[in-house]
Amino acid sequence: MNPRVFLDGSRLRVGQVVQITGEDGHHWSRVLRVSPGELVALGADGKGYLAKVDSLDTKAGEVDVMVIEQMSAHESPVAIHLVQGLPKADKAEFIVQHGTEVGISGFLFVQTERSVVRLDGKDAKKRQGRIERWQRVIREAAGQSQRDIVPKIEYCANWDEALQQLKEVAPGLILLLDEDEDTQSLYKALTKYAPDFGAGSGAESGGTPARDIRPIVLCVGPEGGWDAGERRLLVDNLGAVPVTLGPRILRTETAGLVGAAAVLYHFHALGG
Amino acid sequence: MNPRVFLDGSRLRVGQVVQITGEDGHHWSRVLRVSPGELVALGADGKGYLAKVDSLDTKAGEVDVMVIEQMSAHESPVAIHLVQGLPKADKAEFIVQHGTEVGISGFLFVQTERSVVRLDGKDAKKRQGRIERWQRVIREAAGQSQRDIVPKIEYCANWDEALQQLKEVAPGLILLLDEDEDTQSLYKALTKYAPDFGAGSGAESGGTPARDIRPIVLCVGPEGGWDAGERRLLVDNLGAVPVTLGPRILRTETAGLVGAAAVLYHFHALGG
Repeated sequence: MNPRVFLDGSRLRVGQVVQITGEDGHHWSRVLRVSPGELVALGADGKGYLAKVDSLDTKAGEVDVMVIEQMSAHESPVAIHLVQGLPKADKAEFIVQHGTEVGISGFLFVQTERSVVRLDGKDAKKRQGRIERWQRVIREAAGQSQRDIVPKIEYCANWDEALQQLKEVAPGLILLLDEDEDTQSLYKALTKYAPDFGAGSGAESGGTPARDIRPIVLCVGPEGGWDAGERRLLVDNLGAVPVTLGPRILRTETAGLVGAAAVLYHFHALGG
Repeated sequence: MNPRVFLDGSRLRVGQVVQITGEDGHHWSRVLRVSPGELVALGADGKGYLAKVDSLDTKAGEVDVMVIEQMSAHESPVAIHLVQGLPKADKAEFIVQHGTEVGISGFLFVQTERSVVRLDGKDAKKRQGRIERWQRVIREAAGQSQRDIVPKIEYCANWDEALQQLKEVAPGLILLLDEDEDTQSLYKALTKYAPDFGAGSGAESGGTPARDIRPIVLCVGPEGGWDAGERRLLVDNLGAVPVTLGPRILRTETAGLVGAAAVLYHFHALGG
């Protein structure tokens, strides 16, 4: 199936004909070369819809599609957000691209003490350019991986901004991924937090349904790790639980992906 | 801690002084600039060792280190191997680098029907160059991530070669990662295969210890997926179990990493 097109702010109904224009219309008509009758997928209002190409105007880059039916949910019932100490540019793109694929719902890049890249300076154009680039990468990855939503990305120049953003996420559990292999494992922390899940349990056994589990936040430091003050803020003030992903040292761009995959697996959200 | 240096074929004992030469010696003495008394880690004979820099000759690129003690195991008790339909060059490097970090023990790249890149032609130099490049990337990633072993990589020009290699792995379970979201989930397949693991169980409850679980093989198609004949070979002849990682479509370079993370999590091998 072709990548999804997201219609921001729309609510679709079956039988409706919608026109895909702009970049997406151009991409569908001229690059992917869809043809009338072809099945395509749309994302709108946090849901996925199956649609059929009705007609297209290749010159204008416009594609009319008819909504056929709502598709099954592609989002994890438990939302995962990533607080990521701002890494170097290529790693940041890697994280948002593959994190979107895996199923992360929101990215919070925080300017940290040890971040080599600085976007908190006077160069607002550079900052804005970087954020827009991440948004494009995320949107494309969300379409490719058939997400129902386009994950959000926020850049926070300092921890005050980050805490404000975190408040809006309203997490049920904040996990700080740690390099120290003597820390409690992610497995133990998740089993303590959501004991209804795990082998042979889960929603089917009458425990807490996954959709009632509040968002889980994973915190990953930049290349050089968190500094002592940031760690204190996260653990002492925010109640973040330090967890290890085991004795193998993961790079900053891999840790969030592996952590997210494990959390999704725990909640049976990597397939039922 | 600095990246590990692997001493191939050596068996170390505490108190022994070993000399690091060649590329590694150069790297340690001139790039990382280790100094006498500094603690470093070595990998030898599938184990990790803590050592201390004794003396160094920067000009010759030689570092003498004394072995202090054997370190705790950094390898998963359950070995994971990846059979990967040969992808494009940049994706192949991505897979071996991050797969090594996550904990994959061996990579089997197979020339498939839909592989865009072909290494099975007459250009033996190109093929050899590519394999050597992958080996370098793996060795570096294994050092960085503090693995006890350097994972192996094999290129198989056809399925006869691949089956021969797979035989040597002697897997207990072969999983074919599938895009079809109606397939059985990885979670269900692993729970059926190894029911002793999962919440509150595991080795501590007296079930099968993870070290007695035979290797698990994950099979991931190239960008265009397996063709029908390859699927039949894997499922019908080899008994591979098709499993889904859920409704979000993962790229070929991400699927193996996410699958490996989930398998490790299942066996409590991402931290105890």
